[in-house]
Amino acid sequence: MADDLENGNLGPFQDRPRTFPNMRSKSYNPLIFRILLGINIRFLFVLMLLAFAAVFYVGARTSPIIVFVFSICIASFLLSIYLMKWVLAKDEGPPEMVQISDAIRDGAEGFFRTQYGTISKMALLLALVILCIYLFRSTTPQQESSGLGRSTSAYITVVSFLLGALCSGIAGYVGMWVSVRANVRVSSAARRSAREALQIAVRAGGFSALVVVGMAVIGIAILYATFYVWLGVDTPGSMKITDLPLLLVGYGFGASFVALFAQLGGGIFTKAADVGADLVGKVEQGIPEDDPRNPAVIADLVGDNVGDCAARGADLFESIAAEIISAMILGGTMAQRCKIEDPSGFILFPLVVHSFDLVVSSVGIFSIRGTRDSGLKSPIEDPMAILQKGYSVTIVLAVLAFGVSTRWFLYTEQAPSAWFNFALCGLVGIITAYIFVWITKYYTDYKHEPVRTLALSSSTGHGTNIIAGVSLGLESTALPVLVISASIISAFWLGHTSGLVDEAGIPIGGLFGTAVATMGMLSTAAYVLTMDMFGPIADNAGGIVEMSQQPESVREITDILDAVGNTTKATTKGFAIGSAALASFLLFSAYMDEVAAFARQPFKQVDIAIPEVFVGGLLGSMLIFLFSAWACSAVGRTAQEVVNEVRRQFIERPGIMDYKEKPDYGRCVAIVASASLREMIKPGALAILSPIVVGFLFRILGYYTGHPLLGAKVVAAFLMFATVSGILMALFLNTAGGAWDNAKKYIETGALGGKGSDSHKAAVTGDTVGDPFKDTAGPSLHVLIKMLATITLVMAPVFL
Amino acid sequence: MADDLENGNLGPFQDRPRTFPNMRSKSYNPLIFRILLGINIRFLFVLMLLAFAAVFYVGARTSPIIVFVFSICIASFLLSIYLMKWVLAKDEGPPEMVQISDAIRDGAEGFFRTQYGTISKMALLLALVILCIYLFRSTTPQQESSGLGRSTSAYITVVSFLLGALCSGIAGYVGMWVSVRANVRVSSAARRSAREALQIAVRAGGFSALVVVGMAVIGIAILYATFYVWLGVDTPGSMKITDLPLLLVGYGFGASFVALFAQLGGGIFTKAADVGADLVGKVEQGIPEDDPRNPAVIADLVGDNVGDCAARGADLFESIAAEIISAMILGGTMAQRCKIEDPSGFILFPLVVHSFDLVVSSVGIFSIRGTRDSGLKSPIEDPMAILQKGYSVTIVLAVLAFGVSTRWFLYTEQAPSAWFNFALCGLVGIITAYIFVWITKYYTDYKHEPVRTLALSSSTGHGTNIIAGVSLGLESTALPVLVISASIISAFWLGHTSGLVDEAGIPIGGLFGTAVATMGMLSTAAYVLTMDMFGPIADNAGGIVEMSQQPESVREITDILDAVGNTTKATTKGFAIGSAALASFLLFSAYMDEVAAFARQPFKQVDIAIPEVFVGGLLGSMLIFLFSAWACSAVGRTAQEVVNEVRRQFIERPGIMDYKEKPDYGRCVAIVASASLREMIKPGALAILSPIVVGFLFRILGYYTGHPLLGAKVVAAFLMFATVSGILMALFLNTAGGAWDNAKKYIETGALGGKGSDSHKAAVTGDTVGDPFKDTAGPSLHVLIKMLATITLVMAPVFL
Repeated sequence: MADDLENGNLGPFQDRPRTFPNMRSKSYNPLIFRILLGINIRFLFVLMLLAFAAVFYVGARTSPIIVFVFSICIASFLLSIYLMKWVLAKDEGPPEMVQISDAIRDGAEGFFRTQYGTISKMALLLALVILCIYLFRSTTPQQESSGLGRSTSAYITVVSFLLGALCSGIAGYVGMWVSVRANVRVSSAARRSAREALQIAVRAGGFSALVVVGMAVIGIAILYATFYVWLGVDTPGSMKITDLPLLLVGYGFGASFVALFAQLGGGIFTKAADVGADLVGKVEQGIPEDDPRNPAVIADLVGDNVGDCAARGADLFESIAAEIISAMILGGTMAQRCKIEDPSGFILFPLVVHSFDLVVSSVGIFSIRGTRDSGLKSPIEDPMAILQKGYSVTIVLAVLAFGVSTRWFLYTEQAPSAWFNFALCGLVGIITAYIFVWITKYYTDYKHEPVRTLALSSSTGHGTNIIAGVSLGLESTALPVLVISASIISAFWLGHTSGLVDEAGIPIGGLFGTAVATMGMLSTAAYVLTMDMFGPIADNAGGIVEMSQQPESVREITDILDAVGNTTKATTKGFAIGSAALASFLLFSAYMDEVAAFARQPFKQVDIAIPEVFVGGLLGSMLIFLFSAWACSAVGRTAQEVVNEVRRQFIERPGIMDYKEKPDYGRCVAIVASASLREMIKPGALAILSPIVVGFLFRILGYYTGHPLLGAKVVAAFLMFATVSGILMALFLNTAGGAWDNAKKYIETGALGGKGSDSHKAAVTGDTVGDPFKDTAGPSLHVLIKMLATITLVMAPVFL
Repeated sequence: MADDLENGNLGPFQDRPRTFPNMRSKSYNPLIFRILLGINIRFLFVLMLLAFAAVFYVGARTSPIIVFVFSICIASFLLSIYLMKWVLAKDEGPPEMVQISDAIRDGAEGFFRTQYGTISKMALLLALVILCIYLFRSTTPQQESSGLGRSTSAYITVVSFLLGALCSGIAGYVGMWVSVRANVRVSSAARRSAREALQIAVRAGGFSALVVVGMAVIGIAILYATFYVWLGVDTPGSMKITDLPLLLVGYGFGASFVALFAQLGGGIFTKAADVGADLVGKVEQGIPEDDPRNPAVIADLVGDNVGDCAARGADLFESIAAEIISAMILGGTMAQRCKIEDPSGFILFPLVVHSFDLVVSSVGIFSIRGTRDSGLKSPIEDPMAILQKGYSVTIVLAVLAFGVSTRWFLYTEQAPSAWFNFALCGLVGIITAYIFVWITKYYTDYKHEPVRTLALSSSTGHGTNIIAGVSLGLESTALPVLVISASIISAFWLGHTSGLVDEAGIPIGGLFGTAVATMGMLSTAAYVLTMDMFGPIADNAGGIVEMSQQPESVREITDILDAVGNTTKATTKGFAIGSAALASFLLFSAYMDEVAAFARQPFKQVDIAIPEVFVGGLLGSMLIFLFSAWACSAVGRTAQEVVNEVRRQFIERPGIMDYKEKPDYGRCVAIVASASLREMIKPGALAILSPIVVGFLFRILGYYTGHPLLGAKVVAAFLMFATVSGILMALFLNTAGGAWDNAKKYIETGALGGKGSDSHKAAVTGDTVGDPFKDTAGPSLHVLIKMLATITLVMAPVFL
């Protein structure tokens, strides 16, 4: 659906006059858009109406909750269309801005096209592998009892996988699509008013956030309803509704598969361009950031779009999808064991929570408005305060909505007060998110002690700056771990004492309590994603303003927005890793359930005292270290290519420095693009292959040594140790990177000698080191953690 | 025993003429030495003979194996006295060398005194705590059946703890004692011949290696024999011999407790002085390393002795003690379950292996001899090749000795071919050690690809150098993990199929197989320790040569020795972490046995799917990150104090740079000493307290939530995750540090612009960052891993 919205709006930009045609490579329209464009618009409209009707029909046959979810998602899509139209209606400013913006757009879309071409080929290959594996696996007892054949289950998994991958790709595309259009409008608005610029950036971010979250929710809902109707669930002799969520796992895996490569490729692109541009521009030639004389500057700006917007869109999409599916699986298992009469409330609860998320986040986004008299010379407000106010509105509403929805959907006569316990679990999650954001701010904001100490250590040189930054990053893992530990245990305990018991009277609500806490944490996901998207858009706008050489007052406005964007980006990373930690614990439980179902024996324990299992843990942790190494070194290598190219251009075209010659921006973009596509394969393949190889090898070993289920046990340890190490490593990388960045910014405010001093040089080194940490390796680890959980679920037949 | 050997040789140095008395603070002799000195020498000799007789008597009443072990240990002590006399008989060179050496010795001994004063106070406090815990614990079924009362068990644990702590302290002191005396003799010999200098350094290292290993072996043997005789083991109604090794755990904990603080304090001292000296000296003032004008240079040289020699002595002592004790426990458990008639062969096997270690390593040490015609101008041989030849001799002999001792001690009629399987396990261990050393060399030697790539990345600046170094370090964890995984599994499998079965016919030799592999790995420990000690002695000798401004040809010789020392230091770190990984897996099994014995129920599984256990794992991994952070930041902070002091001296005494004024070396030593004592407390206390606090809190939580053994389970996960993360983190820190160091050295050979170029400056930054990684945090983590295992064993009553 998002496709043809975009498509309808691509038109106006097709025939814009080109002042500097050499800055654009060639206009691009994806094949699917061209086909859709060829179709009569009325016919398309009828087609869409029919599709809606079909979806609603299937939904109505499944559950009224599904209809409710559909309605909210469609309403939020309509809202996002409004946001998009509002943003696109803004002017694009003078031609020099448009020109730069076009160059960025072409670079970003070109890279996106090649990158997703590669990813889709890999996804198709993997789909084939999955198909083969599922066609040759034996069936589980549940499947046998429900008459779900081997081939049906294979097709279901493959279709879910491909749909997940497709939606994840679209989510990434939407993020990038809007950001390459909003950036120039924000720059243009900055010439008039800070508030208007802020509002455009927020609404553009809000558009993609609503689309991403809405698509995750509606995708799962459609799959669920289709499977429900198609398989005739809950009719006698067929599948039970509580087993249905396990069929959706492929969707989560598809989403994380695409997100992993999107994040890796995008992350390498953005940071290689950034580091390369800075190393020659700032350090060697002494020209400011985003200076038009730097040949790598367009590549750097393109990077913000493909690395931050597109990748983060795919990442958040995948987070939400994985979290919804795992919570549905746990809800189903629990409802079945409690013999709850209508389990659909428990199963569909995560979809409801995220529907409310769409509603409350929309309110939050719309609470940020332009002021009428912004034209008068009022002092610039603190944009962070405005965003924070919107977040507070969203959080308050989310708490209320969460309370209402627990009472509505989780009330059951078996345990009349259970809903209240679960509401408290949700509150635990929301509070955890809040504390996480606060801790990240404490460690990365220069208003607080840690970054100031880091800045001070720059005054004794490059070496002490790096030592202090590494220590700060390592230390910053402690508080988040304590918080996440406390919230896992308290949510589990609240669920455990909710009164839900199985036939033998044993309380079994604990895990579902943790799941509800995770939902609570993600219950403002759309607003958080909005704030996150705001960052790169503001960054890009600043770049366009700088490159088109606007007056100082305009730069000041975009600089402030950029600084706020840095903070929101850092805090949403804390949020993402917190939810990844919780979600992966859920997926781990789902994995144990899946293995138990398949092996027809209880699989409740993973005994780390067995040497093979210990080895599995060692290998799992090692994967995290090796993956981070390869992600960082990919940036380093690609940046060196950029450095060499930029140096070459400065030598071959000596007029660049005096604005007499034009640098060849396109060549830098092309170099970074092809290098980052090449470099993303190695760490990506490592992440996909290592759990499969480990599981398969130990399955063989277990077969020959007479050790049943060895493969599954080793993979469980692999997964668990990788998750724990991944959480810590990601926290370390993100926080250290953010702190270095802000220590540099702190010195640039004039502290410790200010710009150009030796302290500043040392701080720039720290910032350079932090770039691949916080924008390539760190965010890729978030995705990796969740992908490991979904890949082990989907590939479970290989290990058994 | 080692005490009075040292004491007897302290005499000759008391009345040396002082040319620059201001370089010495005051002469120092520990109280115990002064008391011993006051005693008539003949009386002392009679006393020693009596002690020997008593030891042999007790040994003879225990087992002939103990007598064998005693004899070898005493023989090796005699040999070490010969080595010491040989080293001390060498001349100390001209007065300017002696003067510098005296200043180093005073600084080192002064720091050692205060440091061990602090450590001994903490040890006494902890002993009191342990006593209280054990007096209030309930007794295990075994203890009840053997009539071992609560107070007896408490006193045994406390006495073992204190003895372990004392021996560990002595091991550290011996390492430092000989190195501060050998350094000047090596410098002096370097004026004559490279070969002689090498031989002195090796023999000095050999002296302390033999003392350290011998003391670890004889200490455990004496404790074992004493308990055996005192408790009347194996007489009807008393304790079984197979339970005896569990009583020795306190010894291991005492040893690791002291080693942890020794390593932390020494590591912070050495690297803070080094980094501080380099930052001002090399970077700001542009004077060479070890230049006498640098006020921090003596502190730097003192650091080599207290950080590398003393700390590594305590570290290796603790490794060997922990490994012997855990292997004895496992041997005892297995022998009991197999109903082997005379289990003492299995229990005492580790002591035998290390006795042979003393023999074969001595042969290796003596195989490095001076050549007769070294005075002639023969070309300088490659010292690495000479050391490697000695190592090869040792390894070949160790393999033979291992084969013989398995046949001799592990032959049992139940499983006639078991000894052969165990011999293969030993071979697995020896091969693992060899591969580990090779991998470390591959990643840290500039003859190979990785360091060359790292050096190349220095040419694009400080930032890319750091990114490349971090990636290299993270990547270097992969191969060692694969090797250790393969060796754990294959050793377990060899043990499993050895034919040793319990009553039910289930094979149970697997864990003992892993234990034998660990012994194999450590079967050349004394030679490895010799090579390790060689490094700081050569480094110091180089410093003395530089400071006393010897001619270029002499510096050349010490430079080569220093470079070789860097390589041997790096490789022995690989060796240490490999053995730590294996040993901690053994100690983990011992912990499970201990909990099972105490809780009177099987405790075979640690279920990581329980949320609390998962949280335990998270906290365990987090401990590693936080500990590393605090260790690194301690170095950073202390280095900044040094930088400020050195800058102050350069400003206040402008004549220093023209050799007109003498810098105040003593003040720098005093500043580093007091700062590092202060800084070692925080990470040390974290390491000691966190497992206790975690175990106790979850025990309470388990009590209130009706979850038995929760504390013990959570601690098990804590331990396991901390071990895995610790292994990876230590590998990362050590390898990255070593690679940075050698990348700098590679550039200094003239590559990529050579000394003074921009590449070199970037490489120096990397080296500075690597210093606390490889010499403070990394080695402390080795100790931490093993200490966690022993502390959980000793503190088990708190968690239950």
